[in-house]
Amino acid sequence: MPDASLTLGEVAAATGLEASDHADLVINGVCALQPGQPGCIAFAQGKKLAEAVSGSDAAAVILTPELAAQVQALAVVGMPVLLLAAKPQLAFVQVAGLFAADDRPDLGIHPTASVHPSASLGKDLRIGPNCSIAANASIGDGSSLGAGCVVGRDAKIGPNADIASNVTIADRVQIGARALILPGAVIGSRGFGNAHDGQRWHAVPQIGTVIVGDDVEIGANTAIDRGALGDTVIEDNVRIDNLCQIAHNVHIGKRTAIASGVGIAGSARIGQDCMLGGQVGVNGHISICDGAVINGGSKVLQSVEAPGQYASGVPLMPAMAWRRFMALVNRLEGRLKALERSSRQKGSST
Amino acid sequence: MPDASLTLGEVAAATGLEASDHADLVINGVCALQPGQPGCIAFAQGKKLAEAVSGSDAAAVILTPELAAQVQALAVVGMPVLLLAAKPQLAFVQVAGLFAADDRPDLGIHPTASVHPSASLGKDLRIGPNCSIAANASIGDGSSLGAGCVVGRDAKIGPNADIASNVTIADRVQIGARALILPGAVIGSRGFGNAHDGQRWHAVPQIGTVIVGDDVEIGANTAIDRGALGDTVIEDNVRIDNLCQIAHNVHIGKRTAIASGVGIAGSARIGQDCMLGGQVGVNGHISICDGAVINGGSKVLQSVEAPGQYASGVPLMPAMAWRRFMALVNRLEGRLKALERSSRQKGSST
Amino acid sequence: MPDASLTLGEVAAATGLEASDHADLVINGVCALQPGQPGCIAFAQGKKLAEAVSGSDAAAVILTPELAAQVQALAVVGMPVLLLAAKPQLAFVQVAGLFAADDRPDLGIHPTASVHPSASLGKDLRIGPNCSIAANASIGDGSSLGAGCVVGRDAKIGPNADIASNVTIADRVQIGARALILPGAVIGSRGFGNAHDGQRWHAVPQIGTVIVGDDVEIGANTAIDRGALGDTVIEDNVRIDNLCQIAHNVHIGKRTAIASGVGIAGSARIGQDCMLGGQVGVNGHISICDGAVINGGSKVLQSVEAPGQYASGVPLMPAMAWRRFMALVNRLEGRLKALERSSRQKGSST
Repeated sequence: MPDASLTLGEVAAATGLEASDHADLVINGVCALQPGQPGCIAFAQGKKLAEAVSGSDAAAVILTPELAAQVQALAVVGMPVLLLAAKPQLAFVQVAGLFAADDRPDLGIHPTASVHPSASLGKDLRIGPNCSIAANASIGDGSSLGAGCVVGRDAKIGPNADIASNVTIADRVQIGARALILPGAVIGSRGFGNAHDGQRWHAVPQIGTVIVGDDVEIGANTAIDRGALGDTVIEDNVRIDNLCQIAHNVHIGKRTAIASGVGIAGSARIGQDCMLGGQVGVNGHISICDGAVINGGSKVLQSVEAPGQYASGVPLMPAMAWRRFMALVNRLEGRLKALERSSRQKGSST
Repeated sequence: MPDASLTLGEVAAATGLEASDHADLVINGVCALQPGQPGCIAFAQGKKLAEAVSGSDAAAVILTPELAAQVQALAVVGMPVLLLAAKPQLAFVQVAGLFAADDRPDLGIHPTASVHPSASLGKDLRIGPNCSIAANASIGDGSSLGAGCVVGRDAKIGPNADIASNVTIADRVQIGARALILPGAVIGSRGFGNAHDGQRWHAVPQIGTVIVGDDVEIGANTAIDRGALGDTVIEDNVRIDNLCQIAHNVHIGKRTAIASGVGIAGSARIGQDCMLGGQVGVNGHISICDGAVINGGSKVLQSVEAPGQYASGVPLMPAMAWRRFMALVNRLEGRLKALERSSRQKGSST
Repeated sequence: MPDASLTLGEVAAATGLEASDHADLVINGVCALQPGQPGCIAFAQGKKLAEAVSGSDAAAVILTPELAAQVQALAVVGMPVLLLAAKPQLAFVQVAGLFAADDRPDLGIHPTASVHPSASLGKDLRIGPNCSIAANASIGDGSSLGAGCVVGRDAKIGPNADIASNVTIADRVQIGARALILPGAVIGSRGFGNAHDGQRWHAVPQIGTVIVGDDVEIGANTAIDRGALGDTVIEDNVRIDNLCQIAHNVHIGKRTAIASGVGIAGSARIGQDCMLGGQVGVNGHISICDGAVINGGSKVLQSVEAPGQYASGVPLMPAMAWRRFMALVNRLEGRLKALERSSRQKGSST
């Protein structure tokens, strides 16, 4: 966290909170509700948190008016200042932004960056050391590239993108405004398209590209392949975590959130407002409807046609119980059939 | 896609197709069969496609003589030109190659690349910005390295390799001809070898290297570790997708195709002509025979000794059904035993 | 392997082994026990290895006195020289270290590296081509950065770190002594924290950092996220393989070893001396106690409270058997209930 200190009044003015009569309180940052940290602001959202708020070491806590009333009823001496907000977490995000360090490179183009003369660069860029920007690429105003990023020919990056280090954005990829792309991500690598001639594999040219909407997050070391024919599409406000695989011609609808380690095979179509847990696998050429929630580790082999929550797999057991269960799995059909046969025989004998 | 236009006659001449009496038709690219795109060539391979061909907006469709006869029997007015090929997809790959953009860096060695004076560089190389090529490395004629690639000491890359951006090829790694290596791939990282002395872990030196054959594809952000003693071996024409892990001393036979997110543990041996679906896990020190097909998400704990298709896991269910199934799993042995006990008692009582 | 040759006496002197009367034997390297390699040293640890030792082509074998006695009882002519050690693998690690190539960059700071004038650089550093070291970063004596590494502002790297190519260490990250970090690893990327306002996602600032202890290994293309509030902590001597995901605010205890492809969700707490197999998934906000061993591919949905070995999932079957098993899974509850109903009826009818 930077060394910045603000008064609670300054924090309130910048974020639309109401500081009431504690405007001069000095605030150094943000913290978790418990144990809390003196001089910092926390937030509380959820049930049964009144005691956690009143006992927090935080200087101030952002919370709903309802929760605040419960906290005040406890009448604890020396409790944090209470800051009211209808959506405490969102207010906290704004407060945290005041204290978060700016991890983007310095303003300007680092002298070790290689920029092709035909590239079109916006204003107020931050281009880190050893970046390379190829012919006819364009980068919108206010965008930032960390050290070692590669932007391919004819790639387009919108304004106010925050792209971290060692990211590869391949030729012709299009990325919207305010993208947040984490280190090592690869966008626009060739799709895994190979044709077998009966003897061996031949690479199928991947002629499409990747189209990324506005306000999209793409995690560290995630790979998004370009389309074979037609494009891979990531719509606005999609959030993708680290180490995910998005294969060629996948289409991901608005605001869908995808946790780390998810693999989505070619031409799968994921709806809007979905949530995919960590390490989910999605089969190729299937679709998941809007509003589906897929629990972590699930394997989605067929299309999901109704919103709601889904799961798969067998959770953890002690290894000895698991071996017994696997033995049971192997003999299950036989045991059931024996019981069914015996049941029928007795049925006929009575 | 580049702006290039060719006549159908030029396309046919370059690919061995027969353009018959439509040689002057202007072709701008390739497209999918449905809906198809005017001015573009598609292909059709599979069953019951006659109507899809006759109704396609494509200018021409590559297809087998058998399918062409079915299409012609439909006698649709304004249908695409039919181009005959015994293997339509392979002919299409060739056609697509005529229109695919060349995403390699410009010919020559970019002035920001660092090349050790002892490195041996072939002719007609394309070495992108900020590459580094270490002592005694050698790169074959016609090969290409995207921006930010690292080639270690004594590494050998064959001719006509197409290596994308930010790839790491570590010291002493050997890569054959016509390699296709995607951004962020790491080849020759140290294997995960650690010895425990009863108190703590010590790193075991990884003395082997990685030997990659000819015509191999290695996906984005995939990691292939060097051997501990002896080498990790990837045979000719293996295809590996993004985000795969190939551990130390793994051996992968010719033409095996490995989808994204697969992890293969140390010293496992995968045969020729296998196919491993996405997110498959293969245990260490086991072997998979030639011609095995392992469905996506499967866990291969023991050797696979017969060719054929394999699967594992429990597919997706609505979360409520899944919770019921897990409860069933926990009580299954008990319920079966109760039934078996009751069945025996009745057997003895009758 | 480098061309170095040493005598067995020199090897023994450097590693504390006893070369007895074969001190002049020329040794070129290390090898596996079987088949072994002339001129090289192997080790044997485990049961029933006497014949493997006596038949090895190795010049010498490191083994326990007990095993040596068994080997000598075989009285094979021309068997390898026997080198006694209480812990043969650890002695072998030391011997292998004598012959392992040094893959670090050359001593000194490569002229293409960008080092901010405020960075604090120790002695005897090896900084490869195209590295960038940002303001106020510090790097301890004897440390090494491969080509293309990025070290962020205020990041601290301890002494004698061996950091390979294209690694990203983000702003403010702290890394202890003797770190071993493999190519493409990302340490300190922003955590996957997003708040939904009912309409869309907003990025939650990730204000914490990553604290990595001493003697930690971090694998190729692994991603470790910075904490949201508070820090992500990796304690001393933890070993993390390739392509792992360590989310924000995870805490990993000393000496825990994590195989490739593991994903650990936010705020999970892993104890000391645990082992997580390949592709394990760990749910967020749960804890795993000290000394737990989680088999590869397991999904850890709830806290693990007792040491021991755990597993989950259904292992591989031929696809036809798997389809039958899935049909069985779907009808299992129904078949059991029918049997139970029938059993009760007969019970009441007798």
